Order: sequence, then structure tokens, then C-alpha cells
Amino acid sequence: MQQDLSRTLSLLTRTPAALDALLRDLPDAWTSRNEGENTFSAFDVIGHLIHAERTNWIPRASLILQSGDSRAFEPFDRWAHLRESQRKSLPQLLDEFAALRSESLGAVRALKLQPADLDRQGRHPALGVVTLSQLLASWAVHDLTHLHQISRILAHQYREAVGPWRAMFGVLQCAGHGSP
Amino acid sequence: MQQDLSRTLSLLTRTPAALDALLRDLPDAWTSRNEGENTFSAFDVIGHLIHAERTNWIPRASLILQSGDSRAFEPFDRWAHLRESQRKSLPQLLDEFAALRSESLGAVRALKLQPADLDRQGRHPALGVVTLSQLLASWAVHDLTHLHQISRILAHQYREAVGPWRAMFGVLQCAGHGSP
Repeated sequence: MQQDLSRTLSLLTRTPAALDALLRDLPDAWTSRNEGENTFSAFDVIGHLIHAERTNWIPRASLILQSGDSRAFEPFDRWAHLRESQRKSLPQLLDEFAALRSESLGAVRALKLQPADLDRQGRHPALGVVTLSQLLASWAVHDLTHLHQISRILAHQYREAVGPWRAMFGVLQCAGHGSP
Repeated sequence: MQQDLSRTLSLLTRTPAALDALLRDLPDAWTSRNEGENTFSAFDVIGHLIHAERTNWIPRASLILQSGDSRAFEPFDRWAHLRESQRKSLPQLLDEFAALRSESLGAVRALKLQPADLDRQGRHPALGVVTLSQLLASWAVHDLTHLHQISRILAHQYREAVGPWRAMFGVLQCAGHGSP
């Protein structure tokens, strides 16, 4: 289906509460473990979502509206969360993500986007010309790719514990398809 | 890590609220669409989780404790939800799943399982001999494989809308690894 602003916002609105319900106060044995070297734990993913919320979606949407495709977006640092999440707890990160998402959604609504705005073009540093509509759709799919990743990271911790069921669960066959 | 009953229950406890936060009142355009012929929508997945809750986990755990591996589990019908979910709404299914999960967790606690019980063996109709511990771990991973699937089904709806970002999201590369 086409990107539709109200559908996109309805999904973006729900992600913080869904992650909160899944992860808050879940034992560290689930949330602090990753899938091996250079991979994220669930804790890391929330830190990454926070960094994206601060530096990626709204700043890029604003740049499209202000400068079109004349200026490329700032590249996104996929590992910045390692520095920024230090000495924070998972509940703190979940609170921070929820607050930032709420601000972001307010910022989108304040833009009072018209249908023609969605076709406006920007420049991604790796992908080239993209539209505001594609950016907004990607924001929602970025949430989903990280929910997909978190479910896989958690399942990975029980890959041996399930014994012969290992062969039956798609999530245990998923190699991440690159990152994430 | 090894299956640990309190860790398993902590995850099983959270799934209904996580799915509720993600899906309740999300537009039908997200929740009623699937990934193509013979695949599930998010609505279908909740129906499937309900069917599993009724017929799979607690009945199989009880059979292990009562009969060991002398009797195979009843085979599980992966498509029963199509019949059972008819004329229900997604909010009804979410309520039903939450209520059944709460009952199941009460039933597990009532079993007062001791460490030695976790090694007791049962017989899966396709996988052969399995332990109660593996069954309990699989119950949690079954939740996670369906959360993984739901995030993929939702993302699939925006696979065109994201434009060139399509190549960057793992969730859009995931072919499901069989079902689900």
C-alpha cells in the first residue's frame, strides 16, 4: 500500500508502548545479551532507536522541507548508542524513547504536511534522491525492523533450550539479513 | 542460556500486553493484510496464538506429567484459527488471548514444577522425544517467532512505500524461513 500519513503515525505512536510492554523489567538475562560479536542486545536497540529519534527522522524531514535535495542528510551513526546509553538502565531508555517519540509526533503534526509536500525530494548520503513520503514510511519500517530484530535477539537466547523444536521456528533460522 | 522457569514465565507474561500495545485499534490496512497466498495477517496470528493457548502448551505439559513419552501429543492444527476467528474483531481476539494466557500461567504455577520435573519426557508427533523444559522454552520462542512474523507482515505492507530504503531493512529481506 501507499504511504499514508495517518497510517504511518498510527504505527509510530504505538511502538514505544509495545517495546515497553515487552521489555520493561524483563530479566537482564533476556535484555542484555546479544547475538554475538558486533551485534545488538535489546538494550542496545532501544539506545539506537533513541539516537535515530534525535538525529534522523525529524532532522531529515526538516532538511527536505527547507533545502530539498540540494543538501544530503547527515550520515547516521549506527553505533552512537554505545556511548550515549552508558550508565543508563533499560527503563530509563524506554522512558526516553517514549518521550522523544511523543515530541517527534508533535513535530510532524506541527508541519501540517499537505499531500504535495510528501512528494518533496531530499538526498540520502548513500541512497540518493528520496521523497518525504519514503522517509516517513521508512521511519515506520525502521521501528518494525527493530521489533523484528528484538524478537530474534530474545529468541536467540533460547536457541539451545528449545531442543528439537529449533528446526520449527522461523525466528531461529533468521540470520538478520544484514544489520539489523 | 538454559531454560529457566521464572525467565520463561516473565516473557510469556509480557506477550499479550506487547501485542495489544502494538495492534489494538491500528488501522485494518495494517492488521488485516497478509504477505500473499497462504500466509497470515496480524489478525490471523492472534487467532493462531489463541488456538495454541487452548490446545497446545498446557495440554502438552499435562500429558508429559501424566503419561511421559508413552503417548504422543495431539498434532497441532496451524489453520484452525481461520474457523475460530470468524466474526470476531481484533480487539476481541486480543482480549481472548490475554485472558487465556493469564489462565495458562496460573495453570503452570499450580503445577508447582520441581527441577526434576523439567527433565520429564514427552513425545512430539513429528519431533520425537522432547522434555518438559524444551516445551516451556518453545512456548516462549513461539511467542517470539510470531512477534517476529507480525513485524515482518506489517513491514511488508510498506515494502514499496519506502522506495530505495527497501534494501536497508532486514525485515524486508526476511522470507519467513518457512512458516512462520
